[in-house]
Amino acid sequence: MKRLYIQEVATRDGFQNEKQFVDTDAKIALVNALSACGFAKIEVTSFTSPKAIPALRDAEAVMHGIARREGVVYTALVPNVRGAERALSCGVDEVNLVMSVSETHNRANLRMSRDQSFAQLREVIGVAKATPVAINVSLSTSMGCPMEGDVAVEEVLRWTERFAELGVHGVTLCDTTGMAFPSQVKTLCERVREAFPTLELTLHFHNTRGMALANTLAALSAGIDRFDASLGGIGGCPYAPGATGNVCTEELVHMLELDGYDTGVNLASVLSSAALLPNLIGHDVPSQILKAGRRLDLHDAPPMDAGGAPTQQAFAREGA
Amino acid sequence: MKRLYIQEVATRDGFQNEKQFVDTDAKIALVNALSACGFAKIEVTSFTSPKAIPALRDAEAVMHGIARREGVVYTALVPNVRGAERALSCGVDEVNLVMSVSETHNRANLRMSRDQSFAQLREVIGVAKATPVAINVSLSTSMGCPMEGDVAVEEVLRWTERFAELGVHGVTLCDTTGMAFPSQVKTLCERVREAFPTLELTLHFHNTRGMALANTLAALSAGIDRFDASLGGIGGCPYAPGATGNVCTEELVHMLELDGYDTGVNLASVLSSAALLPNLIGHDVPSQILKAGRRLDLHDAPPMDAGGAPTQQAFAREGA
Repeated sequence: MKRLYIQEVATRDGFQNEKQFVDTDAKIALVNALSACGFAKIEVTSFTSPKAIPALRDAEAVMHGIARREGVVYTALVPNVRGAERALSCGVDEVNLVMSVSETHNRANLRMSRDQSFAQLREVIGVAKATPVAINVSLSTSMGCPMEGDVAVEEVLRWTERFAELGVHGVTLCDTTGMAFPSQVKTLCERVREAFPTLELTLHFHNTRGMALANTLAALSAGIDRFDASLGGIGGCPYAPGATGNVCTEELVHMLELDGYDTGVNLASVLSSAALLPNLIGHDVPSQILKAGRRLDLHDAPPMDAGGAPTQQAFAREGA
Repeated sequence: MKRLYIQEVATRDGFQNEKQFVDTDAKIALVNALSACGFAKIEVTSFTSPKAIPALRDAEAVMHGIARREGVVYTALVPNVRGAERALSCGVDEVNLVMSVSETHNRANLRMSRDQSFAQLREVIGVAKATPVAINVSLSTSMGCPMEGDVAVEEVLRWTERFAELGVHGVTLCDTTGMAFPSQVKTLCERVREAFPTLELTLHFHNTRGMALANTLAALSAGIDRFDASLGGIGGCPYAPGATGNVCTEELVHMLELDGYDTGVNLASVLSSAALLPNLIGHDVPSQILKAGRRLDLHDAPPMDAGGAPTQQAFAREGA
């Protein structure tokens, strides 16, 4: 069984977009429950300005409040030196930096040019490298920009290289708005792996156009073994109102388990945590496993002599 | 570019489960619009008892009312000889017969044993074979039974063989309640294709657990070239309330086109038809492409000096 590494991002990538503030205690309880599920990494929160992302204004309290579990990497998103200092003061295991591969998305999302972002993140890397903390860079819009369209593989390679040269440990290729498709994913993953064989490479899919699990298969075929996923499939895309968000953790783990991979993750525990989400965030979540159950969560056969109205599926009733 | 064949089932597999009756004229208009989309086959309706499936009680009127387009196969579901006679009187190009591969599901769904179903369908085949009409058999629960669980490949082969011996033209392997997973699909498709190389083989996926597109990739890797799909992703599963239904036509075509296949289908036309569905059936549909648009339906960049409240995505605003 091939070992895969699943990284849970719901409390950061999911909660950051939620209108309803999730209480600090509830966040801590959720991260603690997730810690028992077998994830390789948990992105706990984001050390951004509380004004920019009020949903995560309790980043310090959450990081300090959680019970760390041996073997789980606790990471947090960090936009700048200020955020890095806050994160380091909380003892994160990793800082996750973010910028977009496409200029327009970077300007729209981070309000600066890519070169300005890079300069700022280089400063952050300088601060983090003086500590034992790991450094990951998430490259947004690696598989397409909702404003520019296609993004060349060469652009992804170029930005990966710039960060690799600074000595980051890992890079996450993000399909920020769900524009990736399988053959593209396979080519991109092969090219990046070939160019940077020692970099810890993560794929971060969104299910905006229904392809997240198909794209996962494509990434697996290119040898990728590390995937971000979000409990319940929460985590929206501001450019696709009503569309689903990040690939759903329980749907991902369910498929990978069935296909014979060792995800390290206990699906039953994940489902228990996912079931708490609608109450925490005040609305239904995209997860289909949460509604339909796992494939072998079986149903009783209906009584054969039930009488009454025929079911809608009784195609042949008149012939019975 | 490899040619694939997409078969639209929304007006049968979709509408049969809808509570709101879709007017006959609206059904006819929709089938006519679908006829212009480039589908290889359209499952127009079901010649079942109007009491069993009142949603399709206008089967004759719909079949007579539509404008046939050269090159499109117009098929209809037929449960028994009575239904076959009704379908033949309307000049269908194909009759689609259905039974389950698992005993419990067949009894629950069709209220008879599999052997009783087979005997009844053999009669239907006898009637249809005296005409130029093609005969397809849909084998429900071929990838799992919601009541029995796993279904052995040997069972699928056995029932396929029994129908092949009767001279049917095609067999559809149905993942009736979305229990299929990619490696299973690949093996099943390879085994059935190897055993019955001349049979027209269709794969019919449901997206109940999010895997429909991933399963499609697996089927493609086994050489399958013919897929059922449902506009808007409508078509429910009575054992998974709230879960999505059949694989969504526009999501399927969108992915296949991006991956370089020739589906024969015009995606823009499909999307125009899908956009009519919520009004026709009185509720939202699972389609994500309908919400998010195609991957290259681009967005304007937001103004850089907008002022006011920062967007939730402005992670780095404090650093800008």
